[in-house]
Amino acid sequence: MLVECVANFSEGRRPEVVAAIVEAARAPGVSVLDASADADHHRSVVTFAGEGAAVAEGAFRAVAVAVAQIDLRQHRGTHPRIGAADVVPFVPLGDTPMAYCVALAESVGARIAAELNVPVYLYGDAARRPARRELPRVRRGEFEGLRARMADPAGRPDFGPAAPHPTAGAVAVGARPALIAFNVWLATPEVSVADAVARAVRGSSGGLVGVRALPMDTARRGQMQVSMNLVDFRRTPMPAALEMVRREAARFGVAVAGSEVVGMVPLAALLASAQYYLQAHELTTAQVLELQLLDLAAVEPAAAGERTADGRRDGGQSAESGV
Amino acid sequence: MLVECVANFSEGRRPEVVAAIVEAARAPGVSVLDASADADHHRSVVTFAGEGAAVAEGAFRAVAVAVAQIDLRQHRGTHPRIGAADVVPFVPLGDTPMAYCVALAESVGARIAAELNVPVYLYGDAARRPARRELPRVRRGEFEGLRARMADPAGRPDFGPAAPHPTAGAVAVGARPALIAFNVWLATPEVSVADAVARAVRGSSGGLVGVRALPMDTARRGQMQVSMNLVDFRRTPMPAALEMVRREAARFGVAVAGSEVVGMVPLAALLASAQYYLQAHELTTAQVLELQLLDLAAVEPAAAGERTADGRRDGGQSAESGV
Repeated sequence: MLVECVANFSEGRRPEVVAAIVEAARAPGVSVLDASADADHHRSVVTFAGEGAAVAEGAFRAVAVAVAQIDLRQHRGTHPRIGAADVVPFVPLGDTPMAYCVALAESVGARIAAELNVPVYLYGDAARRPARRELPRVRRGEFEGLRARMADPAGRPDFGPAAPHPTAGAVAVGARPALIAFNVWLATPEVSVADAVARAVRGSSGGLVGVRALPMDTARRGQMQVSMNLVDFRRTPMPAALEMVRREAARFGVAVAGSEVVGMVPLAALLASAQYYLQAHELTTAQVLELQLLDLAAVEPAAAGERTADGRRDGGQSAESGV
Repeated sequence: MLVECVANFSEGRRPEVVAAIVEAARAPGVSVLDASADADHHRSVVTFAGEGAAVAEGAFRAVAVAVAQIDLRQHRGTHPRIGAADVVPFVPLGDTPMAYCVALAESVGARIAAELNVPVYLYGDAARRPARRELPRVRRGEFEGLRARMADPAGRPDFGPAAPHPTAGAVAVGARPALIAFNVWLATPEVSVADAVARAVRGSSGGLVGVRALPMDTARRGQMQVSMNLVDFRRTPMPAALEMVRREAARFGVAVAGSEVVGMVPLAALLASAQYYLQAHELTTAQVLELQLLDLAAVEPAAAGERTADGRRDGGQSAESGV
């Protein structure tokens, strides 16, 4: 069960602390994919992945280091936060079900509360209260407002004491789908077109439910960008977003000049894009050579002679026969 | 270095012989992906894959069993053949270079000649003479014509004796790109449209160089099929074939109703299709989460604090921030 964790910590200025957090996350079996710190936000993001149990262990260790080394009473940055270890989401990779990541969030959350004495809010797909599905609502009032909030029964954490940790605040632990940062360039120098397209496409103004979009003036001569986040690519996939951008831009006589994926993209999102555009409605990942090889256990070759070749079933036979 | 072998044997009627060949191919580290036998062709195809050395060993063992158990003097089928083990192509998977498969073909070919005393022709990308690049020319005259052919210097095998093995004939060992069996349905009941489209698309009649195409009347009501083999998907990719079919069909007012991939497809072909249609001109496989995980050695995460997050570089940061 492959899982990714994209953990956010309230430390972006002391490289040695960020490095200690990254080293803690690198538990046996964990692969650290990215680590970045932002001084203005005073915040860092560590992305790591592997088998669920290993990633859960890495997440707990990283949180423990952050709790020990970050004092939020001294913390001033531009980014909202409730804790030293602020947000710990588990993201399913490959065929891993969301329910598995919900279970990881619950067990890591309970452990953080029990062993580190830090209160934990469950959010996203792991939320136990509807109001906690969206992260901004979980973070409302920030670190400084936690004590007052926890005094209200509606503000009680899901695990741990009903009072903030004196220096580390609280942690939001959750589960969510992988997010895709997908930007599309429009062949126009007019920012007004990009603005109109972004407004038409994004969910918050009546467009696609899983899409956030903003117009961006990038450094490309004669082109504007619609910068999107796809927050649930299985429900609102990349082709749906691209084709809506294309259609809305065409209303202004503007074409799509290209696109880019910023950072990582799940394999499933690319395979779904190929399937969509190739119109290969019944294509399955079981047909992908390398994927079948990498999961040898799933390979159940037909017994020899059981199946009759129809001359098309096997690509190789066609190859050596010459169609 | 992942490699696939799609070996063709001149036995399609005795299941126990096909089973013995399959078992021989299943050398340590080899994964048998498919095995099928055709009684009319009197032929079977065994597809197996793994690391190059393991696949080479499996190929040799399978050929040895075929040489021992198949007597071509008794063999009558509808499919042309020159040997008991007829064709043994090595196909690069993933990032494996073709040159690696050429080297495998040469070493397995030399071993077949030395240990089994069967003459070997190198074909495809492994061919040492231009006339041997195309398999039909290597197989011309079939088993029955081998002795006369080998008497001519131009017909000498690349390895082994200049005379056919009495019962096993000769073997064509080679290297070639993965072949994709890609069929497109047209929303028309008119076979004449599918025929015209297939003729326009296939290389042999002036279309795309890497495409073989035939019209097919499948069981789908109101639809005809253009049945294609893409013999070199890196040069002539799936989108090139599909879009040419679409354009040619549109000349008759006919739309594409869907497509199918028969059998296996290389991951690279699907990723290239996604990249093409998403217009993500600079997308790389290094951005695919699961692929980076599977090749841990290739992962070189930036040292913590070295890179400043720009709020877009890392999908997770955007996710937890809320664009």
